[in-house]
Amino acid sequence: NHVILCGYGRVGQEISNQIKTQNIPIIVVESDEDRKKIAEENGLEVLCADATLDETLKLAGLEKCKSLVVTLPNDAANLYVVLSAKGIRSSIRVIARAGTEEAASKLRLAGASIVVSPYIAAGRAMASMALRPIAIDFLDLLAGSECEIEEFELSNDISLFETAEKRSLSELGIGKKSGAKILAIKENEKLFTNPGGNFILQPGQVLIAFGSKEQLNILNGLLGNLVVAVELLK
Amino acid sequence: NHVILCGYGRVGQEISNQIKTQNIPIIVVESDEDRKKIAEENGLEVLCADATLDETLKLAGLEKCKSLVVTLPNDAANLYVVLSAKGIRSSIRVIARAGTEEAASKLRLAGASIVVSPYIAAGRAMASMALRPIAIDFLDLLAGSECEIEEFELSNDISLFETAEKRSLSELGIGKKSGAKILAIKENEKLFTNPGGNFILQPGQVLIAFGSKEQLNILNGLLGNLVVAVELLK
Ligand SMILES: [Ca+2]
Ligand SMILES: [Ca+2]
Repeated sequence: NHVILCGYGRVGQEISNQIKTQNIPIIVVESDEDRKKIAEENGLEVLCADATLDETLKLAGLEKCKSLVVTLPNDAANLYVVLSAKGIRSSIRVIARAGTEEAASKLRLAGASIVVSPYIAAGRAMASMALRPIAIDFLDLLAGSECEIEEFELSNDISLFETAEKRSLSELGIGKKSGAKILAIKENEKLFTNPGGNFILQPGQVLIAFGSKEQLNILNGLLGNLVVAVELLK
Repeated sequence: NHVILCGYGRVGQEISNQIKTQNIPIIVVESDEDRKKIAEENGLEVLCADATLDETLKLAGLEKCKSLVVTLPNDAANLYVVLSAKGIRSSIRVIARAGTEEAASKLRLAGASIVVSPYIAAGRAMASMALRPIAIDFLDLLAGSECEIEEFELSNDISLFETAEKRSLSELGIGKKSGAKILAIKENEKLFTNPGGNFILQPGQVLIAFGSKEQLNILNGLLGNLVVAVELLK
């Protein structure tokens, strides 16, 4: 249940710093000797090999990892790794870095779940800061707090919902009993932001909830067997 | 009440795209003829001049702008512009791009309110995606919704609070009457995340609230004269 990180450049280093704070195991794949050394000095397990080889990905444990993050120095190499990984394990969750918009769409076509461009990510962050009157970055702020945003995926099993006694947010007592706040509910491509108490839960929805670890645990209990996937970060 | 954007490179272009969606006026300062043309083709007002000159910043309306965003191609130029801007108007809100951690700390010392590094911003975004089970980026999701996160800065005038009849979140009826959710309250360097209904408002606090435009307007009304600054994005 580890994360495989291909590429230990500037973006890769920041990614591993962030993942380490969550105590999730990482394997770094890096063919450059200097970067490999830096990674080892930072206490990381490093596989010094070419990430574009199927063999390397298998050695790194692709078949049983949580996700694969690809941040090699060029878009062609990233695309190659994404295609290789999807060939070995089609369900693998891949997060890839793109240098350009063109590369981003190719990476998405190749099966990357999430594509991030440093320039776009920085541009968005700076624009939102430029427009806000008070210098608070909500995500930075969250990072230093006891609260988190978590996602609860509901079951697709309709019978579970038909037999459930309580199906609205207020009937389930989510606000009152857990203290967690439901920020949004995603249903296929539709999004219901800030749903009210009379919102009725349906199969396959994803609840995006905000609260402390304890509050999110209580929420999980209230949802019971309606939930199929949730991962509370440490 | 416009935003001045110095540098129309890749980050600068993404910033202006984001700001334009909010219908906030922008003036771009760009000395490169090619980039200037691209900006004009994108319908932007461009001042073709050297941003490191005080005269240029004054011409761009530094004295009455909302904020200054600095994304020139090198850290030394960015630092120069930040220092110049602070010299002309010390209260100016400056958001600057940094290429390295070293540049970031210098830009902060020079008075930049927010410093963003593309590599760090991308690394954080990718790490959080790698760890989450379901592929939802909360901020992307917000961008396409009717809800926003807004900040309400409360007055420092103690007498206003002493004479207020209602001072807790539940007495003010914030959840019930507005439907907006208070995600966190900042008080100096302390942060109270997901405050409960019995939380008592104090002078100088900043409320971070989530809701639709209408809900945030109602919240603003409920807070009344306790609020000194709020900017509801369009
Ligand atoms: Ca990298
Ligand atoms: Ca730029």
